Amino acid sequence: MDSDFGVPRELSDLQKLRANYQPELPPCLQGTTVRVELGDGTAAADPLGAHTISRSFPHTYGQPLAHFLRATAKVPDAQIITEHPVIRVGLVFCGRQSPGGHNVIWGLYNALKIHNPDNVLLGFLGGTDGLFAQKTLEITDDILSTYKNQGGYDLLGRTKDQIRSTEQVNAALNTCKALKLDGLVIIGGVTSNTDAAQLAETFAEAKCQTKVVGVPVTLNGDLKNQFVETNVGFDTICKVNSQLISNVCTDALSAEKYYYFIRLMGRKASHVALECTLQSHPNMVILAEEVAASKLTLFDITKQICDAVQARAEQDKYHGVILLPEGLIESIPEIYALLQEIHGLYREGVSGDNISSQLSPWASALFEFLPPFIKTQLLLRPESDNSAQLSQIETEKLLAHLVEAEMNKRLKAGTYKGKKFNAICHFFGYQARGSLPSKFDCDYAYVLGHISYHILAAGLNGYMATVTNLKNPLNKWRCGAAPITAMMTVKRFSHGPGASSIGKPAIHPATIDLKGKAYELLNKNALKFLMDDIYRNPGPLQFDGPGADTKAVTLSVEDQDYMGRIKKLQEYLEKVRSIVKPGCSQDVLKAALSSMASVTDVLTLMTSPGGSAPM
Amino acid sequence: MDSDFGVPRELSDLQKLRANYQPELPPCLQGTTVRVELGDGTAAADPLGAHTISRSFPHTYGQPLAHFLRATAKVPDAQIITEHPVIRVGLVFCGRQSPGGHNVIWGLYNALKIHNPDNVLLGFLGGTDGLFAQKTLEITDDILSTYKNQGGYDLLGRTKDQIRSTEQVNAALNTCKALKLDGLVIIGGVTSNTDAAQLAETFAEAKCQTKVVGVPVTLNGDLKNQFVETNVGFDTICKVNSQLISNVCTDALSAEKYYYFIRLMGRKASHVALECTLQSHPNMVILAEEVAASKLTLFDITKQICDAVQARAEQDKYHGVILLPEGLIESIPEIYALLQEIHGLYREGVSGDNISSQLSPWASALFEFLPPFIKTQLLLRPESDNSAQLSQIETEKLLAHLVEAEMNKRLKAGTYKGKKFNAICHFFGYQARGSLPSKFDCDYAYVLGHISYHILAAGLNGYMATVTNLKNPLNKWRCGAAPITAMMTVKRFSHGPGASSIGKPAIHPATIDLKGKAYELLNKNALKFLMDDIYRNPGPLQFDGPGADTKAVTLSVEDQDYMGRIKKLQEYLEKVRSIVKPGCSQDVLKAALSSMASVTDVLTLMTSPGGSAPM
Repeated sequence: MDSDFGVPRELSDLQKLRANYQPELPPCLQGTTVRVELGDGTAAADPLGAHTISRSFPHTYGQPLAHFLRATAKVPDAQIITEHPVIRVGLVFCGRQSPGGHNVIWGLYNALKIHNPDNVLLGFLGGTDGLFAQKTLEITDDILSTYKNQGGYDLLGRTKDQIRSTEQVNAALNTCKALKLDGLVIIGGVTSNTDAAQLAETFAEAKCQTKVVGVPVTLNGDLKNQFVETNVGFDTICKVNSQLISNVCTDALSAEKYYYFIRLMGRKASHVALECTLQSHPNMVILAEEVAASKLTLFDITKQICDAVQARAEQDKYHGVILLPEGLIESIPEIYALLQEIHGLYREGVSGDNISSQLSPWASALFEFLPPFIKTQLLLRPESDNSAQLSQIETEKLLAHLVEAEMNKRLKAGTYKGKKFNAICHFFGYQARGSLPSKFDCDYAYVLGHISYHILAAGLNGYMATVTNLKNPLNKWRCGAAPITAMMTVKRFSHGPGASSIGKPAIHPATIDLKGKAYELLNKNALKFLMDDIYRNPGPLQFDGPGADTKAVTLSVEDQDYMGRIKKLQEYLEKVRSIVKPGCSQDVLKAALSSMASVTDVLTLMTSPGGSAPM
Repeated sequence: MDSDFGVPRELSDLQKLRANYQPELPPCLQGTTVRVELGDGTAAADPLGAHTISRSFPHTYGQPLAHFLRATAKVPDAQIITEHPVIRVGLVFCGRQSPGGHNVIWGLYNALKIHNPDNVLLGFLGGTDGLFAQKTLEITDDILSTYKNQGGYDLLGRTKDQIRSTEQVNAALNTCKALKLDGLVIIGGVTSNTDAAQLAETFAEAKCQTKVVGVPVTLNGDLKNQFVETNVGFDTICKVNSQLISNVCTDALSAEKYYYFIRLMGRKASHVALECTLQSHPNMVILAEEVAASKLTLFDITKQICDAVQARAEQDKYHGVILLPEGLIESIPEIYALLQEIHGLYREGVSGDNISSQLSPWASALFEFLPPFIKTQLLLRPESDNSAQLSQIETEKLLAHLVEAEMNKRLKAGTYKGKKFNAICHFFGYQARGSLPSKFDCDYAYVLGHISYHILAAGLNGYMATVTNLKNPLNKWRCGAAPITAMMTVKRFSHGPGASSIGKPAIHPATIDLKGKAYELLNKNALKFLMDDIYRNPGPLQFDGPGADTKAVTLSVEDQDYMGRIKKLQEYLEKVRSIVKPGCSQDVLKAALSSMASVTDVLTLMTSPGGSAPM
């Protein structure tokens, strides 16, 4: 199965050009001296979950943030690491392939060799299966040469996306011990980084020398929190899909007779749909987060679309483009309830053929109302994480079907007087995933690879490599690392009145912030998008010239840089301390005391339970 | 409906860059002097149809080929046109939108204004509907500015693709008279150019001054014959789709667990599927022409794929990418027969609900065997040209379904011992059509626009603009024009023993030449493609640097340049004539006679009925 891994690939001319592209490093990572500044200990963002998390991760919870600094930075407490004993590092692709993944390997390899030519990087072949079975490939310059800046995960491959069961965790531990690894780098999304945190804790408990590092690589873009601004792959996926969406918009505008319903990736969150909307300005997007927040039913959504179609018809427009994420179907309350019943019956051992007859009267009524193709798809067995098989459920066809039926009804009733409604459906699922990565993803992944080395050189365990201030040019990027446990939350499930249970601590997918700036931007333009056909065509992914350096709109409008602000705060505190040294005047001391008291009061109020914490 | 046409568009950075791109002209079109050389009268390639065609087109059949020459070319017979009285030209988009269409307008506009600033170009709004209703937009520099080198047909729009009924033809005639047009340029594919020829004939018969010119623009690439090497749009469509196919290949190689079945455009011919295969090297392509030639049944095709899956499994490979054109379904003999029965019942007035019960026993047995989703799709009403609704029939899902069933059967029987077969299906239909056109399509369309002017300036009617020698750099392109009637053939239909009828003369879609060089290239590599995963990723469409000037593989391997050779032959004949002038020696005359006698014999033999004509 892995016979093909690591084999040199025949590259096209464009691929060769890209293979010769050398990403730069931010100033803080240049040179061979690592300067790391450790900040205060971190806490989980969710104070209610903090206790549970700290109990589950006694060795790795509460560790400080780490900032990597340029060699010349004047920070008194920074630790300077100049000795670089030989280390051995393993790396595994874990989770769905994302453009840019290969560059994490390259960046890490490069950092390892710069700091000590005897360092060793082993790639696990076939993803987690290779990790469990100790199947490795030693990374060399030669092996990397046809994979630099290239898409896919085909240098090492991937298999299952889990390192979770006791058996799996033990197998990983044995591998790390047997191969005498100083570090294990796990490349993946929300699930894989949760697993990485668990491994780090288990390794620490077992006094295993291997430090575990996570790298945020997922095209869904849902591993987002105060430390992580975006994920490797998201930029490329959105650019490739926006190109295709714009092509469809141009097409709609040329023939003016079809509504195109396009389903995009995005299971738990609609980041791809939102970003593509902001890049290509289709007429409408239906975000799962909006539907969930407003508890919109299938009928509400259908009505919304029909009203839009009718309003456009009144302006003599019979074409349009409507986006939706694959996760939409699970966010519609009554469909979610139906899916829960179906999955519950599966768990009870009912066979697929018998499920429809055993549904509750309510669920059965809904089920019977749905068109046959969607019935078959809803009856598919759930995935291993209990979610529906979202890539197989053609929500776009369901909506097109319902809208058509409703428009025909209105036409018959005389409340709609326009032309017949025609829809064409598309699923943009897999065709972007293997794309050549954008320049941004090439750079970001390469830098994260370097940071992974610095984390290991600093002896840190259970950290994720982070880059913040990403919306600014690369030489302004801030490099750091955050304990993965600080990104975790704990979910509470209620099972009817009174009964509730607490989930395991985990990184949960970040959904779209309906109070955030990106969503606000969408809202501000929604009516223009809907009515005015101000389609925008960013064109195919370019690597040079206009557009090549464009960043995601959602990244650019959000005002994140949490890590930068944490640093800034530290500087203020340091400054106050240095001004108000023993020996300073009484006046200065009094001013400091009174100001600090007021700051402390405000913050205490904001962070007390019931306070208006803005997070 | 047409309120939006001609409106300036907001362009993205990349679009702006492209809008500033100025295609060059081949030397023969530079300057303001048109030199046109008229060759011998043309004949239809199919001698059996020639009589029917000449009878249907008494005014426009048998006209000479035209070659446009550089001002300095030393050709004694060339007509030099230096006077350019004011002319008024109309232009209409007719047929499915194809990347590059806007550049035909630009090229034509540019040529008109260079030769006489008072010339007028009117675009018909909303395609043929605008032609019939005399709705026009006068093209200006200003209007063109945001449409230069841009995709879609949204400057003018398109509607129905036909100018055929007496009513439609008369409406077009009235429009041309009312607007006092000297020329009407029709941009489209096989059908539209057939209509153009009919219009030209009707106009000539009616002594209407308007000359009709056709321009070969169709993304299917099936308007191919001895005069036309490729069509505007085909290059872009194949590049965009090849990008996506390669992405899917990379994806398959990363996870190694899925077979991807991808359906591509191509109704009557599989040119897009063949070109994409040669660009991206997927494991397999099923060409409709192969299936039709070998009369492969659904079971044969299923078995072929299953055997391939099994052979790959023996090499521990459980992934793959398989391409097919949307027209495949109609080329499978028994499905074709079933579709004919269904469409026949529709013509008899049977309603869709009752059709399945009225099928013949044989057709009914096949129909019942098929999975439900495909039954519904086969039962869709045929399109206006009597073909099935190919974009709606998910042949890729049907094949994936049948292959899965067969692999499970083999697994159960123990004849297959590999892992479970998993398929994912894609239809790459509309997402490439609105793309920014490739450099090649920008150039080709722009040059064709210029040639359209030269055809009108030379007073020719019923001609198609042609460029040959396209595989060579632009400064080697040969520009000319060929009577559309010379591209026509006549189909004979047999309706049971003895009875047969003759169709109307028309340009028919050119299918893949199974003896041609492109197909030979595929065949030579088919086994390597199938087994060795030598996927090739041309990457996203680029406008600069490597890959930007790449031409279609099928264009490059074919050794076409028919127009060039016709010219060469004329030169030889001219040379013989000039050497063997009265007064030459007896020996020279004898040598000439004997050589010419032998040439004449060979050619007579080759072109006599029953002779081995290679066409």
